Amino acid sequence: MKAAFQGELGAFSQQAIVQLLGKSAKPVPEPWFDQVFAALANKEVDAAVIPIENTLRGSIYENYDLLLKHDFVITGETNVRIVHNLIAPPGMKFSDVKKVFSHQVALYQCIDFFAANPQLEKEVFYDTAGSVKMVMEQRPAGGAAIASDLAAKIYKGKILKRAIEDDSQNFTRFFMLERKGAKPKVGKSSKPWKTSLVFTTKNMPGALFKALSAVALRDLNLTKIESRPLRGKPWEYLFYIDLIGRADDPVVKNALAHLGEVSSFLRVLGTYRAA
Amino acid sequence: MKAAFQGELGAFSQQAIVQLLGKSAKPVPEPWFDQVFAALANKEVDAAVIPIENTLRGSIYENYDLLLKHDFVITGETNVRIVHNLIAPPGMKFSDVKKVFSHQVALYQCIDFFAANPQLEKEVFYDTAGSVKMVMEQRPAGGAAIASDLAAKIYKGKILKRAIEDDSQNFTRFFMLERKGAKPKVGKSSKPWKTSLVFTTKNMPGALFKALSAVALRDLNLTKIESRPLRGKPWEYLFYIDLIGRADDPVVKNALAHLGEVSSFLRVLGTYRAA
Repeated sequence: MKAAFQGELGAFSQQAIVQLLGKSAKPVPEPWFDQVFAALANKEVDAAVIPIENTLRGSIYENYDLLLKHDFVITGETNVRIVHNLIAPPGMKFSDVKKVFSHQVALYQCIDFFAANPQLEKEVFYDTAGSVKMVMEQRPAGGAAIASDLAAKIYKGKILKRAIEDDSQNFTRFFMLERKGAKPKVGKSSKPWKTSLVFTTKNMPGALFKALSAVALRDLNLTKIESRPLRGKPWEYLFYIDLIGRADDPVVKNALAHLGEVSSFLRVLGTYRAA
Repeated sequence: MKAAFQGELGAFSQQAIVQLLGKSAKPVPEPWFDQVFAALANKEVDAAVIPIENTLRGSIYENYDLLLKHDFVITGETNVRIVHNLIAPPGMKFSDVKKVFSHQVALYQCIDFFAANPQLEKEVFYDTAGSVKMVMEQRPAGGAAIASDLAAKIYKGKILKRAIEDDSQNFTRFFMLERKGAKPKVGKSSKPWKTSLVFTTKNMPGALFKALSAVALRDLNLTKIESRPLRGKPWEYLFYIDLIGRADDPVVKNALAHLGEVSSFLRVLGTYRAA
């Protein structure tokens, strides 16, 4: 099974692929998220694994938007513990480091580390693992990178500082996507089912409150709500929600029917075992 | 009056400062958002002007987090129309362009332009106006930048393509912040008042629904809801909401008291004239 992910080999998404599909799955790196989705659409891969939210940083907006743009189904979920390391070419000492390259999100997750080390300059790079690869190949003066220990291993970098993220409660939640028609994976998991959906409210007072009543009045547990701007309609929003329950459960079906009455658009994105 | 903003001179935030404080206000550029907040805390400036959401991209997460970390008040709001231009050193033609530098958000707002011009490589830079400055000073081979026409003017770049953003309904909403104790600006505006607040729900079923009932059952108009992760408590969230009404209006005061009953934390971030 081939699974597309964003970044270079050694990215945290690669760990998510192992957790979701096992070590035999072949990770296929793509530079940008839209290319990950395109690879699945073009049948170059069987699945795509994308980060959807991080416990420090929040939702990965772009992937919420791409979920709406494409018509895939979410068939799995997993959480990866994110540990950031300062990585440099062997021979470099911490006192030699002047510039630190990494993805903007990774730099943002190490704000306390940068506050404690004001001599270090932050340099935004498009990918965490890719920043290690670049530092090892191009050896910019005083250059180090922030990435996973897997990335250090792959590109033969030396870890100068381990676990420099601000908060050890740093997890990223990933979705596995497959093309339309893919069945939910039942598996051996004893975890509850989750259902993800997206809707827009009708333009009326208390619209979001009415929409959430479809879920809350049935005692269904809402685990996440995310709002995204509606393109071409400034200051109007799409809402993505996750709830506990399987989409074909009668109570969930009633909630979806009720939500359909009070929303102007509704789509179920998938039903899957909770991580 | 001195107002801090993120980016280099020519950033869209500079336009927001003009709209909020007039042309006599002195814009003080800072490289990162946390430094904008620090400048206000350290009394180096009288106000800070920060982007809070964009109609294509969504909320600027980091600023929501910094609003919580600091104890400032929101005293104003404005919307800036965002027009992205492809800018290069004079003498360069569009067919010479190979690499396009800009802020990740700006690159993301021009996805259709890049899809139509696959020969162009995207290069993430920390700032839009800063990318023009860099392209003009360092002249990387085939390098162009995406930024405002103000940035083109300031750094004497040539606009090769105008308005390359995917959607003309591209606006960014900015907040003006002042230190605690600053009074809301009444002004001559006939616009309604808005109040922004942040809260966490108690850990109980239907918690968000109950919290929103404090607003919806009083027919107060909710214009925005944003969820952010709660640090150290994976998969729990803070909610930021904006509603129409002034914080000292009796109905709004009742709604805030009611919200206080069903939330474990509540803070009013400011009350100000809507843009």
